[in-house]
Amino acid sequence: MKGLWLENQQLELRTDIPVPEAASEEALVRVCKAGICNTDLELTRGYYPYSGILGHEFVGVVEQGPDNLINKRVVGEINAACGKCRYCLKGIPTHCENRTVLGIVNRNGAFADYLSLPVANLHLVPDNVPTDVATFTEPVAAALEIQQQISISSDDKVLVVGDGKLGQLVAQTLALTGCDLLAIGRHADKLANLEAKGIKVGYADDVQTRSFDIAVECTGNSAGFDIARRALRPRGILVLKSTYAGNLSLDASALVVDEITLIGSRCGPFAPALELLATEKIDIKPLIHSIFPLDEGITAFEQAKTKGVMKVLLEISKT
Amino acid sequence: MKGLWLENQQLELRTDIPVPEAASEEALVRVCKAGICNTDLELTRGYYPYSGILGHEFVGVVEQGPDNLINKRVVGEINAACGKCRYCLKGIPTHCENRTVLGIVNRNGAFADYLSLPVANLHLVPDNVPTDVATFTEPVAAALEIQQQISISSDDKVLVVGDGKLGQLVAQTLALTGCDLLAIGRHADKLANLEAKGIKVGYADDVQTRSFDIAVECTGNSAGFDIARRALRPRGILVLKSTYAGNLSLDASALVVDEITLIGSRCGPFAPALELLATEKIDIKPLIHSIFPLDEGITAFEQAKTKGVMKVLLEISKT
Repeated sequence: MKGLWLENQQLELRTDIPVPEAASEEALVRVCKAGICNTDLELTRGYYPYSGILGHEFVGVVEQGPDNLINKRVVGEINAACGKCRYCLKGIPTHCENRTVLGIVNRNGAFADYLSLPVANLHLVPDNVPTDVATFTEPVAAALEIQQQISISSDDKVLVVGDGKLGQLVAQTLALTGCDLLAIGRHADKLANLEAKGIKVGYADDVQTRSFDIAVECTGNSAGFDIARRALRPRGILVLKSTYAGNLSLDASALVVDEITLIGSRCGPFAPALELLATEKIDIKPLIHSIFPLDEGITAFEQAKTKGVMKVLLEISKT
Repeated sequence: MKGLWLENQQLELRTDIPVPEAASEEALVRVCKAGICNTDLELTRGYYPYSGILGHEFVGVVEQGPDNLINKRVVGEINAACGKCRYCLKGIPTHCENRTVLGIVNRNGAFADYLSLPVANLHLVPDNVPTDVATFTEPVAAALEIQQQISISSDDKVLVVGDGKLGQLVAQTLALTGCDLLAIGRHADKLANLEAKGIKVGYADDVQTRSFDIAVECTGNSAGFDIARRALRPRGILVLKSTYAGNLSLDASALVVDEITLIGSRCGPFAPALELLATEKIDIKPLIHSIFPLDEGITAFEQAKTKGVMKVLLEISKT
């Protein structure tokens, strides 16, 4: 089969990859569409030493697996857990110490004709959710993880830093909590997407220092971190939602004096993400920049790396 | 009156300081004993641009104030709050945005014959608590702040990094929660104090990586931070209990992947601290290294700066 293979930070389209064999309790999924995420771009820059097929945001059709899933569209949680370690037993399989992660850690990903995942990871896509839209299930779930970790209510003043793909989904999901939300970024057109949804938007200069209860950093750069940090009131919470190239330098004494909480946030729950997509509470359409066939995957990656470009999708097969 | 005055990072014993005038709702306190804290040492190194009398850990006797306090021994919370700002109204006066802080921010401190503080900040010292012991109320309260911020139970595996003054109090207070505690440091004699209290102790090499639920960093240096960070399991909590000279460099991506929480922790509740001292649940005696009269305050500071020295007290007047 064909697939976009990463090796030594070099991405290439290979055509001779064997179709994966679904292990026991796994399903074989024909990939329909898949989205290029910033983590994929970071992996090509060496963020983590992964070799194999990239890609972890996808919609596919089950070809081998349990009867109730055959020929159905599915999305899949990306962490394949062992079910036996202390984290699995604690009910947090996303932190399984033996996990493989689709297209990230020791498991071939979604930028290929086929992938395999544990059946337990798969979720049926509701009929009314278009395939393009459903490819956003994983990042919407990641955005929802914030609300799994901290309680956010209409009393909270919340800042989202970053108007890219992640910031857009984080802002839209947080807006649903009824909190007093401000989303800031650097791109008038991207901020306009959020403004159209009734979200207050602005630029870094619009952020009043020491005034927000919660700030969510979605840029992955230290300038974004600094804006989020300065925005927080004492005892405020800074959610780190993005990965960073290299180390971050911070004033730890000021964290102590202001008793700030910093919290890292990663993968989230798929079921409520699909529910938000099915009920159209999240608007995905403006986030799709372009769609390429798998054969043009290298070009798709080049475009995804271009500053200001939102989500680039790969169309791999018809549903 | 006499006092240890800091100006441009120079500490000197001045003898011509006017006795403070207690403002409305404040008390005038004759200082009996006061402890030199690492924050005092940091202030002499320019951690914060403070000018005035240093010192914030003290026991004194009220000379002017409400009748029920006159001639009584008291300790005092160090943050003098406005009572009107949003933090005061939220019930967190330690973060009052207009606060002065005894010997730290815009309020003369305790290394002097007299100090003044709001009456609301004062707590009577129980008769059975010796004055030496009661000077530790403020740092014991700071140690207890951890338990105000996060819930700790016998199910939790907790690491304390640092066997200095702060680490000793943090370890002793955490031990009372019944958690599975390990305290590590670099000094056999200091660790022996804790071992004598039944606390498991060790060195950095004894820390199993990715195995602790909670780690409390009490060293204020980046090596200590790194040990604490490595010790944490995914979704673990790192409590920053110490201030740091300069910035801290950290791998923020790993915080995201492991969904680590970092939480700064500062001043804590005095009433339970006094209760622990009154019931002798905390053993203070091994922490006192020496006692100097105020006239020898400069020498006392020099000694307090010496590596390995625990608490140095100043005796300013008899109770």
